[in-house]
Formats: sequence, C-alpha cells, structure tokens
Amino acid sequence: MDKESQIIKQQVVYEGKWIKVLKKDFSIGDKVIKEYECVERNKSDKVFKEFDGVSMAPILYNTPTGIKQIIIIAQFRPPAGKFMLEFPAGLVESDNLFENAERELKEETGYYMDKQSQIEELSFPNIPISVDDPGLCSGSGKFIVVKVDYKDIRNQKITQELDEAENIRVHLVNLDSQLLSSLIQLAENNGYWISTKLYTFAAGFCFSQIASKF
Amino acid sequence: MDKESQIIKQQVVYEGKWIKVLKKDFSIGDKVIKEYECVERNKSDKVFKEFDGVSMAPILYNTPTGIKQIIIIAQFRPPAGKFMLEFPAGLVESDNLFENAERELKEETGYYMDKQSQIEELSFPNIPISVDDPGLCSGSGKFIVVKVDYKDIRNQKITQELDEAENIRVHLVNLDSQLLSSLIQLAENNGYWISTKLYTFAAGFCFSQIASKF
Repeated sequence: MDKESQIIKQQVVYEGKWIKVLKKDFSIGDKVIKEYECVERNKSDKVFKEFDGVSMAPILYNTPTGIKQIIIIAQFRPPAGKFMLEFPAGLVESDNLFENAERELKEETGYYMDKQSQIEELSFPNIPISVDDPGLCSGSGKFIVVKVDYKDIRNQKITQELDEAENIRVHLVNLDSQLLSSLIQLAENNGYWISTKLYTFAAGFCFSQIASKF
Repeated sequence: MDKESQIIKQQVVYEGKWIKVLKKDFSIGDKVIKEYECVERNKSDKVFKEFDGVSMAPILYNTPTGIKQIIIIAQFRPPAGKFMLEFPAGLVESDNLFENAERELKEETGYYMDKQSQIEELSFPNIPISVDDPGLCSGSGKFIVVKVDYKDIRNQKITQELDEAENIRVHLVNLDSQLLSSLIQLAENNGYWISTKLYTFAAGFCFSQIASKF
C-alpha cells in the first residue's frame, strides 16, 4: 500500500543572503526520519511567486542553412568553478511566464523571442512546477520551448545585456539527430560541463528518433 | 572577446552531514564578484568519484501492448515537502557507471536492467559530467538511457528494496507523442511536482516529433 509522507518539524541551521539550509524531520507512514538537510532559496516576494524561475529551449528557425538551431549558453558557475552549457534561464520578476522568458533570453543571449513564441503542440494550460535538484533544494521553476525567428531584423546583430555577476557565451547547435553528440563535442572542446536539463532535453530529442528501432 | 573567470577565494560558512555552504569570490575578466553562495555535497570518497550520481531513463520494451514505456518514480522529497516525479537515480558507490545504475534501478523500482543495457545510438565513449542546478550546487552526475525487458522473468513481479529514508512509488508512462501531457496529467492527478530533467527529457522527446512543422 502507498505510504504517506509529510514534514513534521524543521529548523533553519544556516541563513545567508540568497539561500538557507534547514534540517527537516519527515514521516514515511509511521516511521520518522530525522534531520534531512535541505536548501531553500530566499524569496523576496511571495505574492506572485509560486515558483522561482523560468528556463527555456529557444529554437532558432529561418536560419540561412535551413537547419533549426537551439540557442544555448555557456555560463561561468561559481559552485563548480566551471563554465556550464545550459538553457537560458532566470529568476521570475513578474507573474507573466513568457515576459520573464523574453527578458532573460534578451539579456543572456541578445536574441528576441517571437511575439507568438509558443509552440502549439507543447503548450499546456497548466505548465507544472518543476524542480532542478529535488533531493537537495526546493528551488522550482517552469520550462518552456519557444521560437526565435532568425529573419527578425533585431536578431541580425545580437547584443547581450549581462548583470555584473554574469559571464556568458552564446552557442548555436544544430537541432538534428547529432544534437547530443554535438553538445558533448562542444563541451569537450571548451572544457565545459553540461546542465542536466540541457543534456536530458537532447537525450530525449535524439532518443525519439531511434526509439522504434529496438 | 571572451572573458575568463575563475574562483579567487572561498570559505566554508556552514558544514553539515551531507552538504556544506561556501562563499566564493570569483573573477570576470578584471572584475571581482564577492561572496557568491554555493552548495557542495560532502564526498566520502574522492578516489573514484569525479562525479556524485547517476540518473537514468529506463525504457521498458516487449510490453504486452507493444508500446514502449518509461519507468519513473514519485519520491517524497523533504526540501519541497512533496512527492516528485523523477528518473530513478542515486549516488555512485563504485566507478562502474552501469553497475551503479543497475543497483539503483533495482532498489528504487524493482526492475532489472538488460545485461546489454546500452542503446548504441546514445552510447558515447565519454558521457560528460552534468550538473542538476549549476547556479546553486556543484553536485554532479551522468545521465544514461537504458533498456529494460518486460519479458525478463525477473521483471514479472517487481519488488523494491528501499532505504529507510525513501518513500517511492513506481509509475509507467507510455513513450509516445503524448509523453509530456501524460506526465503533466499524472502529476496533476496525484499532486506531484516534476523534476526538471524528467520534464525536459519528455519535452525533447515530444518536440523531436513536431520540430519539422514550423
């Protein structure tokens, strides 16, 4: 039978500027597990924020070669001390998911999203809340796939608008059956690590094309 | 021109049983950014561990309906205090990636991986290190897609072998063009959140089937 679980007790053991660490006791049925270490992002404004961030797969179409490309970034990330290949992403600042995505895409990559950026087949009335590292942190977001028109005149000469703490390089990777190996090659050539969500998107994309073979 | 970045200074500000919090100063070209808060997993054994964990998309084939399925779990995660839909995953305990995956799959879901579990088109000599939440934590892993044979006699009656701190339900979802909406429905019906890497795998899988349409 399915067991229920809930948080029974929690205490903050570290509080910083951006994050805090908590120890939580939780139940599994009648059993209690003590002092599980959890990380939480400090939220500045709980009014509109059911979740912390937005991340996106921006698909560049109308490219000169006719092959669609995915716009990704290599960002220096202090936790691992490395540049990471990642999707553009950021913390939400208002309750409009697409406005937040639009802003982050422009700031981090210089590209402008289409006004009608949603891909119909992947648009759901309720995009669920997702969590990057659920065993460690409650930090949460929503993920979307959006369109970027290469022929949009504003996308001919791109300019980033980075925060002072951001060091970000923009990369374009062909969206074809070689996507996963292209990412691995790009990472190897530059000494990058890869964010798991970019890797699994590419793995899902490539697997889809061979899934019928076994 | 590309700017270089590196960690200049770091100090531990919290040390727990499983994680620590550090404040790091890092450079962007000539500029220094101070006291970026980072989380690190405590590593018990650095000898074989370039990375912390393994996660996998286990693909069940030879099913009665003929439709392949993906084996996923809903695990109670104390950080968010919710059950999360996730890929089976775990910390590595030896240097053989597939042995670790095999053990975690058996423990968390009861299923046995194929002896020849690798899918040739997705097998790379160097699977890169990936990071779940690179802006927050250096915790790292490798992700693989593996095969599980429904007709394997051991998979006819599955039995989990859970740790005392694990509360895990096993779900099977059809691997078809509805994969993403099936996950969303499953999450909604049960009050689950979703791990971003499962969500992006499904988004990549479904996007692959419609990418040529626009």
